[in-house]
Parts: sequence; structure tokens; C-alpha cells
Amino acid sequence: MKMRIVVIGANAAGAKAASKAKRLNAQAEITMIDRGRFISYGACGIPYFVSDAVGGVKELMSTMAGVVRDHGFFQKVKGVAVLTGTEVIRIDRGAKRLGLRNLASGELSELPYDKLILATGSTPLVPRLENVDLPGILTVKKIEDAELLKERAVPGGAACIVGGGLIGLETAEALRQRGMRVTLVEMRDQLLPGVLDPEVANLVQKQLRQQGVEVRTGTAVTGFAGAQRVERVVMGPRELPADLVVLAPGVTPNVALACEAGIGIGPTGAVAVDARLCTNDPDVFACGDCCETTHLVTGQKVYLPLGSTANKQGRVAGINAAGGAATFGGVIGTTIVKVFNLNVGKAGLTEAEARRAGFDVETVLSPAPDRAHFFPGAKPILLKLVAEKGSGRILGVQAAGEGAVDKRLDAAAVAISFGATAEQMAQLDLAYAPPYAPAMDNLIVAADILKNKLAGEARGITPQEVKRKFEEEEDFILLDVRSPAEHNEVGIVGAKLVPLGALRDRLGELPRDKEIIAFCKISLRGYEAQRILSSAGYEKAKFLDGGILAWPYELRGPLEEKK
Amino acid sequence: MKMRIVVIGANAAGAKAASKAKRLNAQAEITMIDRGRFISYGACGIPYFVSDAVGGVKELMSTMAGVVRDHGFFQKVKGVAVLTGTEVIRIDRGAKRLGLRNLASGELSELPYDKLILATGSTPLVPRLENVDLPGILTVKKIEDAELLKERAVPGGAACIVGGGLIGLETAEALRQRGMRVTLVEMRDQLLPGVLDPEVANLVQKQLRQQGVEVRTGTAVTGFAGAQRVERVVMGPRELPADLVVLAPGVTPNVALACEAGIGIGPTGAVAVDARLCTNDPDVFACGDCCETTHLVTGQKVYLPLGSTANKQGRVAGINAAGGAATFGGVIGTTIVKVFNLNVGKAGLTEAEARRAGFDVETVLSPAPDRAHFFPGAKPILLKLVAEKGSGRILGVQAAGEGAVDKRLDAAAVAISFGATAEQMAQLDLAYAPPYAPAMDNLIVAADILKNKLAGEARGITPQEVKRKFEEEEDFILLDVRSPAEHNEVGIVGAKLVPLGALRDRLGELPRDKEIIAFCKISLRGYEAQRILSSAGYEKAKFLDGGILAWPYELRGPLEEKK
Repeated sequence: MKMRIVVIGANAAGAKAASKAKRLNAQAEITMIDRGRFISYGACGIPYFVSDAVGGVKELMSTMAGVVRDHGFFQKVKGVAVLTGTEVIRIDRGAKRLGLRNLASGELSELPYDKLILATGSTPLVPRLENVDLPGILTVKKIEDAELLKERAVPGGAACIVGGGLIGLETAEALRQRGMRVTLVEMRDQLLPGVLDPEVANLVQKQLRQQGVEVRTGTAVTGFAGAQRVERVVMGPRELPADLVVLAPGVTPNVALACEAGIGIGPTGAVAVDARLCTNDPDVFACGDCCETTHLVTGQKVYLPLGSTANKQGRVAGINAAGGAATFGGVIGTTIVKVFNLNVGKAGLTEAEARRAGFDVETVLSPAPDRAHFFPGAKPILLKLVAEKGSGRILGVQAAGEGAVDKRLDAAAVAISFGATAEQMAQLDLAYAPPYAPAMDNLIVAADILKNKLAGEARGITPQEVKRKFEEEEDFILLDVRSPAEHNEVGIVGAKLVPLGALRDRLGELPRDKEIIAFCKISLRGYEAQRILSSAGYEKAKFLDGGILAWPYELRGPLEEKK
Repeated sequence: MKMRIVVIGANAAGAKAASKAKRLNAQAEITMIDRGRFISYGACGIPYFVSDAVGGVKELMSTMAGVVRDHGFFQKVKGVAVLTGTEVIRIDRGAKRLGLRNLASGELSELPYDKLILATGSTPLVPRLENVDLPGILTVKKIEDAELLKERAVPGGAACIVGGGLIGLETAEALRQRGMRVTLVEMRDQLLPGVLDPEVANLVQKQLRQQGVEVRTGTAVTGFAGAQRVERVVMGPRELPADLVVLAPGVTPNVALACEAGIGIGPTGAVAVDARLCTNDPDVFACGDCCETTHLVTGQKVYLPLGSTANKQGRVAGINAAGGAATFGGVIGTTIVKVFNLNVGKAGLTEAEARRAGFDVETVLSPAPDRAHFFPGAKPILLKLVAEKGSGRILGVQAAGEGAVDKRLDAAAVAISFGATAEQMAQLDLAYAPPYAPAMDNLIVAADILKNKLAGEARGITPQEVKRKFEEEEDFILLDVRSPAEHNEVGIVGAKLVPLGALRDRLGELPRDKEIIAFCKISLRGYEAQRILSSAGYEKAKFLDGGILAWPYELRGPLEEKK
């Protein structure tokens, strides 16, 4: 008898699992079931469909060659049967049968399976707030949502995004590009918590403000108000007028069906699976946004739903369901998002995550152009490296800037996957020519700084720590070692100017017992100054991590030229 | 007594070595010696200075902050003394003294050292051809060369580049952008031999032709002719008019000084060094273009001079000379070059190199857009993977296209450094969002195909092999499984059309005993067709590696619409 494989959910993970299973086992009968009208669409493209960067639904649903991935496509090309508009209402694991309901007709039916793949995806969280069901309050997940959002997004209207995560940021950009006035409200005191450390998240906030998006962090939405439809967002005692609200506080895995059938749920709330993506039932697999995975740096179970992971998992689930053998190791939390002109993301752990996981960490902030600085079009990017102190192992990398952030994240992601140390990262043979990278790639420079820090030669101090010293009026010297021209153009209030070239001759001006914190544009000269001071017996000499370019706080504007 | 470190050569490697040594050992007296007028300039930027993409010499010589790296800069900022216009004429290793000559005055002097660092660089090879010293025949290496070249590059004039390597290609572009008629002559039968396999190199040749550069491969220049200056390039019986000739057949390490002093030269002809970059004299180190290094994939000694390697090596030599301890592991041959709109390069070994090194190899050709195909601005790139058959270890990756080639090369370079297998590459957690990558990154798709091939599920055949079958009039069926519209637009002459969606129903048209080679645009459908055929008992079913997009030979144009 032919093997019957049923896949619940016909998007990234499900479609991949079904297609792969069929390719591997041509004799198997494969059926995909989905509640929606659209299947196998590029859900991650939805914000760009909202902004009109992507022209239409058809593009999101097409293959590279322009073929629409619909029923007929899966049936004829992939050899996979598809039931859309169909809900699975019950999994009877004993009898190996599914209970189905046609959403249009209400008709009930049953479908037997030999192997079952759960690819039920996730749903946007809807916080239980007062009047959250008022018309005009939307979520963004499905194509239907996006179509509604485009209808409601009136140029000049006021939109409020609740949640400063990936979807919130992408939607803020999309609505701004449709000409709306946009306010983004985030409960936590920074954007992209869980993806970025605060000083990197600050760059995102700055970018949003530059692009005319109002940002309110540390602000909890408590409810909504309006007569026929939403008119105001309520935040405790304050209110904000809004014609349109998008809820983007995150997503939750769709596990109800699995739960009811007694399929194991993990500590993250998503379906628990082993490396073969098998659930606690040997005939039931799970993949994509409905299941949890392993973080390869911490070894912990995590819930990090992403389209890239879903595709990899779909392949593995499909192979195993079809009788093959494949495993999915896990993820390292790689994340990237475009926020207007800023590219920003991470691979591995943030400093906060690393500390929470119990690592003793060293960090580096390193800003530099993304290609040879003399090459036209070179753009700055800021790297933050997080490493384990004893071993020098790289635990995480964050990157932000207008330049090629994605390239450094990918190279870092591979390095982190293989447990690279600072020493190994510093010696990577990365592709160099002036149009692509500086002769010393940003990652290599950052790794060298990290090595210098781990060896005790480079003594950095974070911007946060310097800010605290100012606030607590500690007695220290902040030493600007740039040129007078650079110093006059932009600076940090309270800094003393001694250009690096003059430092050796002007040591007399600097008291040996005081803490001296040197900086320049990127703190390469700042570091050289610290080395000069340390060698001259200044035991408390330090340099400011990342210099002016990584300083996340206010800078002073041009000084008047001295006569 | 203060330690005296002398560095011969004041460019990438030398300048880095000197600066690092001083930072580590502030008490050391460091002297850099260079024959040239300019020091510490971005030599790799010279072609872009020729094309005027980089405005001036000053930009090539400046730091990121705009400070010119001249004598004063090294003395004041770095604490390093510099002697320019000075030639080292002798190394007396016994007495630890250098003999110097001032190139302007002819004055001789001596300089003692405790530790010596050779960073003498490389020189363009000048082939011994008839009349090679005629005026108008230049090389491109130093800023002085570039200035001369710009002077001689008259719009409308005829330039001939001898050599299709990196410098040859970059110079061809630069001169074309100055409005010259450019012919590039390469002795070997492909461009970039040693960097690309022939089918990838073909894309470079195509790009050059599209940009109006005439390319003659397999053509040896035998000499030059002209009265007062070069007028013609002689290639055996043929001649080519030329107002300007650039010799770019490669570079040779500057080892004469080291040789005379009895410092060991390796099998590549460059200075032999150990992992500490120490020569056969424990007080003499070498770094940059004058020394050889180890290829980490083959374990062989190689001569691969590059600015990125020079900087890393300079740091290591500087540390060791200053009394510290550092090692340089080696390289994996990562190379990248911009050829007009094409980005192209490699990491690890080409197929040819891998076979020469004795590996049993499997390869993949995988063309795909560089980001979500629905995202505006997505551009195609072609990847070629070379892997070891038994272990699945990735030995090399080549990439070419208008899209983000550099990103894939860097990620691949890291993976190859860590000995990644196809399985490991397929599971990399690379950064995904539609503006940056497809949900399944190009590298992951290519690794999946490789896995399918290694597992015997995917049976590919190279374009070269199909071409051979046509030429030898073998009896086989080339099966186009695209849609009729795609088939009509562009195709391979001699192919039979059976769209993938109809294949299961039309198996009757295909004889089971014949070799059937399926293809589509990128050979994903081609692969699916092979799976369908294989499952239906067609034992000789294959798919064409990389499909239409990777087909390096002629394609037929639009067919007339059938009535």
C-alpha cells in the first residue's frame, strides 16, 4: 500500500516538507491542508507588499520563474494534493485519522495518514487590552491582513504600531512610506529587545526619528478608545490619536491542535521535537513556526520562528516522514531587519543574553566603513562583538549601519556556528578588493581589538560606563585625541583635546593618578593613546569603546573656531 | 639598551608591522625604510585612481579620518621613524647591520638592527619580449605608475592589456572608463586562470565583451613594434595597433636582498617563513607580498600576495619582532574582483585545483537571485561548489554575478576554514529578511543540491559534458521542462519541450532506454523532472547543472510563436 503523508499547513515549512517528501518517495501520497485561501506565499515579504515595494500578491506567491504556487502547481509540478479552506479539527493518533471541516460549506470529513507533519505556523499575539477588538486595530501576518491594511492606510492619517520588534519596525516603515504619520510604542525601554543591546538599539531609534517616525519606548499601551472604530490609543493617563493601529507584540505558535491530541509541548510553549523533528509520537513530525528548536550557543530550547529556519526544517521533516534520515541541529539566533536606510541585526547572543546565560564576557564596539574608505560609496557600519573571556570564543555579533551589515552577520554566523575564537576570526581569509571591504575587514579589525582586550593590552570602557561617570560626577579626564579640526566639528561635552601626534610631548599636562579615557572617531587613535599612556606609567588609562561613531548619546555640535 | 627594530618596506605589511611593534613595545626604536616617495598607500586602489573613481593620491594615502600617512604621521602618531627614497643594499646578518643608499644623493650609510622585518613587497613581472622597453609599455603597481598611465590614457586611443588576471581586468575597466578602446590578451584559454573554472570565467569574458572590451584568450604576445614608442602589439603572425600597453602577467616577490643575505627562499620563489613568520634567521621576519604562505585546504606552500593577507601578516611579524608571540595560520585563496557590473571570485579551491591536489570531487552549479526574488533589485548570482566526494567537505566556492557575490564568498570562506561539510553548510543560520537574501540562501540551496548529489538522488551533468555530447553526436534527449512561454523566449538548440507539470502524463513520449537530460531556468525543475523520471524507471535520467542561467555556451533566441 502507498504511504500516506499528510502535512497540516501549506506555507514555508509545510510546502517544503511536502515537496521534499514527494521527491524522495515518489510512490507516497502526499496531502497538504491549509485553512487559508493563499498557500506557499512569502509571508516575510508582506511588509514590502504593504509599502508597495512588492507589486502584488502574485509576486509573493510565485516561483523565481514566475509560476504561481497554487493548487494546480502543487498537484501537477510537485505531485502533492492540496486542500485549502480546510481546517483540521482533530488528530486521532490512535486511529491515525484527521477530522476535517470545510470552512466554506461546514462539511465534515476524515483523512487517514501514515505519517503526519505539523506545520501549523504561528499567530500574532493579541494582547488582552480594553477595546482591542475595535475596527481599525489590525495584525500583520497573512496576505488578507496586508490587503486590509493597505485599504486602511490613508496618507496623512495617524498610525500607531504597538511593539518594537521585527514586524513592528517593518510595518512602521511600510506605513510611513504610504504617507502616514506613524508612532511606534514599545513597552520595554529599547527597540528590538532580544535582538540588540541597548547601545545598538539606539541607532535604530535614531534612524526612525530621522525618518519621521515617533518612538515611545518604556510605554505600555493599556487600551484603545473610539466610537465606531479606533480613534485613540490609551497609555495609562495619556492618549494618542490613531486612525489605524497595528498590533505587533510578537507571535505565538499554533499548538492547540497538537495539545488536544496529546503531542508534547516544550518549555517555550511550542511543539517539542527531537533532532529528527519528531514529536513524542514517532509518526508525527513538526517544523516551522509551530515548533521549538535548540540554540547552538547556549544549548537551550528556544522559540525563534523565521522563514529561513522553517525552510530548513521543512526539508528535514519531509525526508524523515518519507522514510529517509535527516537531522536539524538548531539555530544561533541570526536576525536581520531593514529599518529605512539602516541595516541591523545579530548572530549568536547579545551581551545581555550572554550574561544571562552565565558567560563571563568581553565586548568590542568597532565602527568602520564597509569597504576601502577611499572607495566611492563606502558606508559606515558599527560592529559589536561579544566573547567569552577565558576562551576568547565569539558568542555573538551585532551589526548596524547603512553599509553591508548582512555580509558581516553571515560571516560571523558561520564563525559562531563553528565555535570560532577571536584569534580564529582575526585570521579569516575574507574576500578583499576595495569595492567590497577594507583591506582589514570590519570583522577582522573587531577581532583584533578583542584579542588586544583579552590580552590586557587594550583597556576599553563602554559608552554606558562613561555616561555614568559623568552623571555621578566622578573625577576623570575624557581625552579627545583627534585633530583640532575634528574636535571643533563634533565632540563629547567635557572632553579635553590633546591630538594624538602631540600626546608624547604633552604628557606633562596629564596627571598620572587620574583615570584618563582617550577617544577619537572610532577609537583606533584612542587605543593608540591608551597604549602610549599605559607605557608611560599611566595605570588608569583607558579608551572609549567605538569612539565618537559608537557614542549612543548626545554629541555637541561645532565649536567656534578659536581665533 | 632599547631594542632596535628595522622594517624594510613601508606599505601594507611593513607599516602594519612597525605600528603594531611600537604599540606593543613602546620602548623599542622602530625604523621603516622605503625606496619610494609614497608610503603606506592603498595599492589595491590604484586601478580606481586610474579610472578617477578615487579622486586623488591623497585619498589613497589617508586614514579613515582623512589624515595623510606620511613621515610626520608615522613619527608623531605611530612613534615610528621613516626613511623614504632609501634603498637597502645589503643585509649583514652577522653584524646585524644594513647597508643603505640614499637614492637622491647616492650617499651610503649603515643602520644596526636587533630584529629585522622584510616587507619588500612584489614587482610586476615583465616578460622578456621583443621591444618590451619601448615607451608606452607600462606596468601598474605603484602610484607613480598610475600617474603615468593616466597621462597616457587618451580617450579614443587604443590600449592593450597583456594578462587576464586581477590587475589586468581592473586596468581594462579603468582604461575603458577613461574612454579608450581596450583589447585584453591572455595566453591561457580562459580569463582568471587559478581563480575560476572555465565555465565561471566565461561569464567574465561575456561581461567584458558587453562593456566593449575585446578579449583574446589563448593568444601569446610575442613582442612589440614602434618607432619612437609602442605602436603595435605582435602576436606571432598577427599584429594589433596600440597606443598604450599595460603588462599585467602577474607579480614576482622581491627577494633579491634576502637571497643575497642567505635568507631561505621557499619552493614558490618567495621568502620561506614559519608560522611565526620567522625566516631561517631567528632575528629576521618576513611579511606581505615578499613571502609565501600555507594554503589551509591543501596544506601546500603557496604564493598569493594580497593586501588583506599582508595586513594580517604585518601584525604577526610586528608582534614577534617586538618580543611577543603570534602566529599566522595561512590562507584559503579567497579572491574577489569587480569587472564592470560583475562581481566574481572564489574561496578555497577551484575544481581544477582540487583535482590537481588529488581530491575526488563533486560539483554543483546553482544560479539564483541574491535576495527574495520578489524583492525589488534582486540580482542573479551563480554559485559553483566544489566538494570532496566521500566526506562531503566543501573544498571551494566560486561566485559570479551582479548581485551580492562578496557576501556568499565570505560566508563560504569561513565555512571552508572550519572544514565545513555540505550538511553543515546546508544548516547554517544565515541572516534572512527579503531585502538581504532568499529564505533559503544561495549557499544553502547549493549545499542542498550537493547533498542530493552526494546521496545519489540528484544526478547532474555539467554543461561541458552536454556540449561534448552534442559535438560527438551522441544519442540523447535534452529535455526542456519549462513552460512553453519560457521555452519560446530562450533555449538550448536541440532541446525537446515537455513542461514539468505535464511530465507525469507524457512519459509515453520518452523512451526508457535513452539518456534524458532535463533542464529549466536554474535546474530546480530540471532536478524535479529527473526525480520523476528516475522514480518511473528511467535509469539514465539526469539534469543539467545550473540550467539555462549557468549554460556558458550560445543560447538560441526567441522562437516564433506557434500559430
